Amino acid sequence: MGADDERRVTITAIAREAGVSVPTVSRVLNGRSDVAPGTRERVEELLRHHGYQRRSARTVTRAELVDLVFNDLDSPWAVEIIRGVEDVGHNAGVGTVVSAIHSRSTSTRQWLQNLRARASDGVILVTSDVTQPLHAQLRRLNVPVVVVDPAGAPATDVPTVGATNWAGGIAATQHLLELGHRRIGFVAGPTHLLCSRARLDGYRAALEGAGVPLDDRLVRPGDFYHASGFAAGTALLDLAEPPTAIFAASDQMAFGVYEAIRRHGSRVADDVSVVGFDDLPEARWASPPLTTVRQPLVEMGRLAARTVLRLARGEQIESPRVELATELVVRDSSAVPSGRR
Amino acid sequence: MGADDERRVTITAIAREAGVSVPTVSRVLNGRSDVAPGTRERVEELLRHHGYQRRSARTVTRAELVDLVFNDLDSPWAVEIIRGVEDVGHNAGVGTVVSAIHSRSTSTRQWLQNLRARASDGVILVTSDVTQPLHAQLRRLNVPVVVVDPAGAPATDVPTVGATNWAGGIAATQHLLELGHRRIGFVAGPTHLLCSRARLDGYRAALEGAGVPLDDRLVRPGDFYHASGFAAGTALLDLAEPPTAIFAASDQMAFGVYEAIRRHGSRVADDVSVVGFDDLPEARWASPPLTTVRQPLVEMGRLAARTVLRLARGEQIESPRVELATELVVRDSSAVPSGRR
Repeated sequence: MGADDERRVTITAIAREAGVSVPTVSRVLNGRSDVAPGTRERVEELLRHHGYQRRSARTVTRAELVDLVFNDLDSPWAVEIIRGVEDVGHNAGVGTVVSAIHSRSTSTRQWLQNLRARASDGVILVTSDVTQPLHAQLRRLNVPVVVVDPAGAPATDVPTVGATNWAGGIAATQHLLELGHRRIGFVAGPTHLLCSRARLDGYRAALEGAGVPLDDRLVRPGDFYHASGFAAGTALLDLAEPPTAIFAASDQMAFGVYEAIRRHGSRVADDVSVVGFDDLPEARWASPPLTTVRQPLVEMGRLAARTVLRLARGEQIESPRVELATELVVRDSSAVPSGRR
Repeated sequence: MGADDERRVTITAIAREAGVSVPTVSRVLNGRSDVAPGTRERVEELLRHHGYQRRSARTVTRAELVDLVFNDLDSPWAVEIIRGVEDVGHNAGVGTVVSAIHSRSTSTRQWLQNLRARASDGVILVTSDVTQPLHAQLRRLNVPVVVVDPAGAPATDVPTVGATNWAGGIAATQHLLELGHRRIGFVAGPTHLLCSRARLDGYRAALEGAGVPLDDRLVRPGDFYHASGFAAGTALLDLAEPPTAIFAASDQMAFGVYEAIRRHGSRVADDVSVVGFDDLPEARWASPPLTTVRQPLVEMGRLAARTVLRLARGEQIESPRVELATELVVRDSSAVPSGRR
């Protein structure tokens, strides 16, 4: 089993002898401040006594397992984040344990139990429903936590990795304005999520910047899923004065808008331009390929993994909140309005 | 850290004292036959000496981690298989470690090293390129292995979970025949994969069964990816006598056919029917929603997880090769040929 396993055993043995948890021993080893002075002294003494060999931070990553937790694994972008985390973990010799907790308390309890049993070294949460109780329980386990794209309002002391949603909303809307569109529909995400609000505000800011008056009838509710995009797209096309372009706050809703346009007997781009948000792989396979705002999901996963590994080693991180840049990717679903050609 | 951790330590300590590997101790504990008699005796003696408590198989799953290994995590169905494996693992208290080896030997070596370091209890390989050297290395590690959907020819001694590709090929083609299509194009998968061959043979068998002569010009090569579906679809539509329906051996290629039809100025279903193979979530989001052959990917993942956990407990499995049934899912991309309406 080699040196790693032996080392793990030794930490466990020392924890038992000191009457503390394994993470506590790790915190002492990593020089972290959140250990009671008496405990630290006792653990340090035992480490010396047993001749425990500390290895340099350069050559060894303490973490062996990182838990990557989704609410559900049916999200189309789950695999993108897994790719990013796995990439960093793989190279660091760290296993990426993927779980889904389904927003259910029984499932969350089971996961917490599994997490403790496998002595995971860090947790990356990809969920918009990071509840306060869950945070409290993770704090008790003393395992470092990083949240990816917290669409809700995260507890301020948890490091988070997000994307520039507001800037993305502006970029998508400006692109349609530059093509000559003036009536631009918007399909929103769930209103309780901050990212939805940011994308909508970006849309509004771009319109205002271009001197285009806001028309509330052009803004429709959605929940990021396909069916809501279809319903919103249908409602927009049924307006007395329908939009010539629709910006949907997720790719999946944009595909729903595609279907609404098809059922309406019209054509995407030729009759109605569509812009999405996410840049899932499916955006390239759509017909026509979808113009969308790219969220750097793989890179967000990578950054979350690097951050949690640094925390597991007891390092300080610069900022608790990092937003990676979104980017407009122009494909074939957006064009000059038909009346202008 | 509780009982599990303590137990792990004890096994490790016994392995060290006996001068054998941890998996060897596990095999003795699980009553497996593949341990040398002298080794078994020495380990049994130490287990007695240290008063090791065996727990009943009902209350404890020995396995704590299962490695789920993909060639690449860019496959659109990766997340479906992860969902199935995670579901079984979660309920059994087993962590699902997800990795990608990218068909590169350096990456595979790193993964094997990580696998050994985390003492994984089982491996599920989801890759069409399970090389003989990799199998040999895994055999040396003495960790149970299950292969999901081995599109190539797996070593016969490795349990595999697949789907009924040939029957799926028949179902898709019969559906189009029943709608009245007689010129049905086929976009094939990579020829070196058995599943591609099985789907093609199903297509041919259905045509022959209906007395429709085979036309080699209607069969086009593909590689399961979008671009090849687009190229094949374009070539088929450019034929002097083009098909009225196209069956693509993967959903992604079917989406490429959609785009070929759009660029051709035609409409899916109205002008050319399309059937795919996989039933990815994207099939429901396509416009029009795609008729396709469902591979039970989540259930395949579940079965693979249950099988590897049984092997990890030293149980016998009934059959080394299981194929789960595919199923035709009819949506809006297939219709009666336009000339017949």
